[in-house]
Amino acid sequence: MTSIGIVGAGVAGLHLGLLLRQHDVPVTIYTDKTADQVAGGRLLNTVAHHHHTLERERALGVHHWDASEYGYVCHQHSIVGTPEPLRFRGDFDHPSSIIDYRLYLPRLMADYEERGGELVVGPVDLDEIDRLGRRHDLMVIAAGRGPIAEMFPRRADKSPYDRPQRRLSAGIYQGIAYSEPKGVGVHMSLGHGELLELPIYSKQGFATALLFENIPGGELERLVDLRYEDDPAAYDRTVLELVERHYPALYERIDVDAFGLQGPDDLIQGALTPIVREDYVRLPCGTYAIAVGDVHCVVDPVNGQGANSASYSAWVIGQAILDDYGFDEQFCRRVAREREAFVHGVSDWTNLVLNPQPHMVEVLMTMAQSKALCDEYTRNFNRPDRQWQAVATPERAAAFIARHATDRDVAVA
Amino acid sequence: MTSIGIVGAGVAGLHLGLLLRQHDVPVTIYTDKTADQVAGGRLLNTVAHHHHTLERERALGVHHWDASEYGYVCHQHSIVGTPEPLRFRGDFDHPSSIIDYRLYLPRLMADYEERGGELVVGPVDLDEIDRLGRRHDLMVIAAGRGPIAEMFPRRADKSPYDRPQRRLSAGIYQGIAYSEPKGVGVHMSLGHGELLELPIYSKQGFATALLFENIPGGELERLVDLRYEDDPAAYDRTVLELVERHYPALYERIDVDAFGLQGPDDLIQGALTPIVREDYVRLPCGTYAIAVGDVHCVVDPVNGQGANSASYSAWVIGQAILDDYGFDEQFCRRVAREREAFVHGVSDWTNLVLNPQPHMVEVLMTMAQSKALCDEYTRNFNRPDRQWQAVATPERAAAFIARHATDRDVAVA
Repeated sequence: MTSIGIVGAGVAGLHLGLLLRQHDVPVTIYTDKTADQVAGGRLLNTVAHHHHTLERERALGVHHWDASEYGYVCHQHSIVGTPEPLRFRGDFDHPSSIIDYRLYLPRLMADYEERGGELVVGPVDLDEIDRLGRRHDLMVIAAGRGPIAEMFPRRADKSPYDRPQRRLSAGIYQGIAYSEPKGVGVHMSLGHGELLELPIYSKQGFATALLFENIPGGELERLVDLRYEDDPAAYDRTVLELVERHYPALYERIDVDAFGLQGPDDLIQGALTPIVREDYVRLPCGTYAIAVGDVHCVVDPVNGQGANSASYSAWVIGQAILDDYGFDEQFCRRVAREREAFVHGVSDWTNLVLNPQPHMVEVLMTMAQSKALCDEYTRNFNRPDRQWQAVATPERAAAFIARHATDRDVAVA
Repeated sequence: MTSIGIVGAGVAGLHLGLLLRQHDVPVTIYTDKTADQVAGGRLLNTVAHHHHTLERERALGVHHWDASEYGYVCHQHSIVGTPEPLRFRGDFDHPSSIIDYRLYLPRLMADYEERGGELVVGPVDLDEIDRLGRRHDLMVIAAGRGPIAEMFPRRADKSPYDRPQRRLSAGIYQGIAYSEPKGVGVHMSLGHGELLELPIYSKQGFATALLFENIPGGELERLVDLRYEDDPAAYDRTVLELVERHYPALYERIDVDAFGLQGPDDLIQGALTPIVREDYVRLPCGTYAIAVGDVHCVVDPVNGQGANSASYSAWVIGQAILDDYGFDEQFCRRVAREREAFVHGVSDWTNLVLNPQPHMVEVLMTMAQSKALCDEYTRNFNRPDRQWQAVATPERAAAFIARHATDRDVAVA
């Protein structure tokens, strides 16, 4: 009987584990935190689940937060630093949603165990992965930094950066009224960075996550070094001042008196270097290990794609496990081929957005004038492979724009 | 406006042309024969269309020969040369069918032209392809031998043979009663070759194509050198004698007095070397050219997969044309990736069957004992990517067999 070992109880590990349990495949997830530790810990991320990810949740019977109630339906764009400030909107076909992973992951861990999935809590290192490989037919590495991620060689051809392109501050705030229609605010302050305004459902109910994507050297970078614990009031005041200056479209919807970080655990500050790694390696014990999620591909969160890509990738692995006859290199190559367009599409597109070439800038500027173009770009958050097809080269971007040339109009949100 | 140029009016060129016309994409097919010339010419092949190909015909509105009336539903296996002769049957989920291409292609050429497709009849050489490339956004090379096929370099890693593995004789015969249920007879004479008994619908109505796959040096090879025109009666007599000796399961259903080749144009004799070529090249004019069908991948007809693989491949190209924003190398790589598992699966599986390693022999021998295994192998004629997953290695074949170990039984047709 096939037995699958998964390292990591994030979205990829859990979606894969749940899919395998749905088909009675024996599976063990190895993780370093209990569900209670995840639930009571620090904010993990501020990630949107797009429609394709929600569809997988529905197929697994774990869509516990109905997107029609908890979700949002559009991107509300604002740009300052252009000759005229710009505001425009792009609509989804289906809602996306953002649930605090301290609610999401523990609930799915419980689902997984209720359905017969084995969950082993404890530290996992490289030697342990090789030992586990002897007990399983395939290892899926869905969590791990340092030596664990480095098992999978970096792909220089797909990894254009050797340092972070943004310094990040993500926190959950109160005192922000949602946009109408409810959407993610995609705010740009040219030269300084982006702010993603994210309608999140957290432990305290509906709130707003602000993900500041700060260009190194820009005026917003100091947000990342500001210590909330040192002086919460000063922290909130600084955030408010910088939002007023750089992101006025958001500032308009802030109740200044009510504004503030939800709590000290609701903030993460840091930076990451985007990287794409090889899809798989053969462990010393002979078993193959496939990388998924951040172990395979670290993307900057500016496009909100990481979790979706991880879940997609987990699903490809799961369907292949259910379908295939062996867990050899042929299997690993199949997985790599089947997820390549999507996972690399996420990475290539996101890396382009971090340092947009002129044709990417032109797409964005044209979106401000063409709601049809903006809608398609927005819908493609659910189809990152298609997004990359549309923006990969100047010629493609021109064709993408031209396809909507006849319906250009001013689209003000 | 996108414009596609297709060289070749075989099944790949026509299915692609019809798909593009269904979506109002301008397309021109260049071919060296008129529909009347095809209709009045020599037998082109004896190819089965499996369910996935028929599904595409239905989607295109060109399924003119309803498979429930014209098709067949199983493979009737017989093996001689083993200690005991073996007979067993594998069933499809959906019927396949075999229509003489001298009926099929002219009818689809007419459909294509009726739907606004341009058809240009005349010789096409390399220089002409480059000239055509200036008029089209993409060239699809769906026919051509010699220098045209050689535009696409041979892939040594996927082309294990440098000469034909079988010498072929394919003809349409009368005087053979169909098996019950109606199926393709897959007859093997160990050491001498295979005979595919194919219920074909031809210009004269229902008949049987016999495709002799003769191992060089075996007793049946001389069929390929026998000239029908020299002495039709002697030809028919020789075929009959060899069938009696090597393929008794077929001989039982022959009415000796009625048996004979349908006519001098209903016979083709020859040989081919299996080969896989690169997916695409950039023409001197800058336009990309994608290979499809035999130009991309020549497979021996022993598994009856060539036309299906060509049609599948054409469909991948067509869907990509409809979906994508550019016809650059990124487009060509996408097509290559999307068809790889299927098209290379056909080729790898067929190349294995021509010179079966012990694990492939074991699969065949176990099929004689397990109808469930035989049914799955038979259904996988509609899923060659999956077939290759099942038989690629000894370990995979063992897992494939083991999956049906509990339901092994004697399955006599």
